[in-house]
Amino acid sequence: MQRIANLLVIKNGKVLLLKKPRRGWYVAPGGKMEPGESVYEAAIREFKEETNAEPLDTHVKGIYTMMIEDEGEVVDEWMLFTFVAHDLNGTPFVETREGILEWHPIESLSTLPMAEGDRTNLLFAVSKPGVQYGTFHYTMEFELLKEMIQTSTEEVNRQYGQ
Amino acid sequence: MQRIANLLVIKNGKVLLLKKPRRGWYVAPGGKMEPGESVYEAAIREFKEETNAEPLDTHVKGIYTMMIEDEGEVVDEWMLFTFVAHDLNGTPFVETREGILEWHPIESLSTLPMAEGDRTNLLFAVSKPGVQYGTFHYTMEFELLKEMIQTSTEEVNRQYGQ
Repeated sequence: MQRIANLLVIKNGKVLLLKKPRRGWYVAPGGKMEPGESVYEAAIREFKEETNAEPLDTHVKGIYTMMIEDEGEVVDEWMLFTFVAHDLNGTPFVETREGILEWHPIESLSTLPMAEGDRTNLLFAVSKPGVQYGTFHYTMEFELLKEMIQTSTEEVNRQYGQ
Repeated sequence: MQRIANLLVIKNGKVLLLKKPRRGWYVAPGGKMEPGESVYEAAIREFKEETNAEPLDTHVKGIYTMMIEDEGEVVDEWMLFTFVAHDLNGTPFVETREGILEWHPIESLSTLPMAEGDRTNLLFAVSKPGVQYGTFHYTMEFELLKEMIQTSTEEVNRQYGQ
């Protein structure tokens, strides 16, 4: 089963997005986990490879089950792990073989072209505390059919009040 | 790839553990994710099935890559998602087909018989803020060969200071 980790850097009111050539859709930099990696290692490695910059204070914000359907049949299932970071070491590439890296105002996540499930994930990542979970059902053309979302936050006081 | 979700309830200074018959090792209640479930749904469903009680305020504490090795060869790789909850609706079963459910003092996680990687995960879950990530390498007899651990916490002030 494919496991994908991506990472959104949020800095000075902007987010770093990768504009993919095929549809012009925006994504957070990321890619496939390698065997034996942790999701955290994968998110940081993929971000470094795609941007040439190092994310700082990386933290998980979303864990998603992705279902790809064709005429009502599930044809693929994979996992997506979304991370955020709030600073960078280094200056990101502008153009890469994966697409074009661009800083955009946080608010533009509401309107930039992207997969609708990615919009759900990235808007949560920039605006809400805690972790989001869920399942996204997509067509093979990445049209969102259905999303089911849950969220949780850590109860730090209870955790340490014992 | 197998995905397992487990859930540790921490309440009144105690944790609810399942004593498995085979080795007498303790685990947090849990089991396999079903297709299309989120990890959060899987953790809650499996906990309910195994204990007959409903966990409240469930939150993720660990995301792990598990590597099973035999004479230096990787024979299996799977993902483990560890959650905590701080309260329950209902009274847990005492004995189930999976094993015996027992409340133990939090401190006993340091000494009860269990897989050594599980000890790492559960001690983190009861004592530290944030999320733990990592890779555990085990033999087929579940002897821990190597663990690599990372942790992160959410920067709530920066997240919302924008």
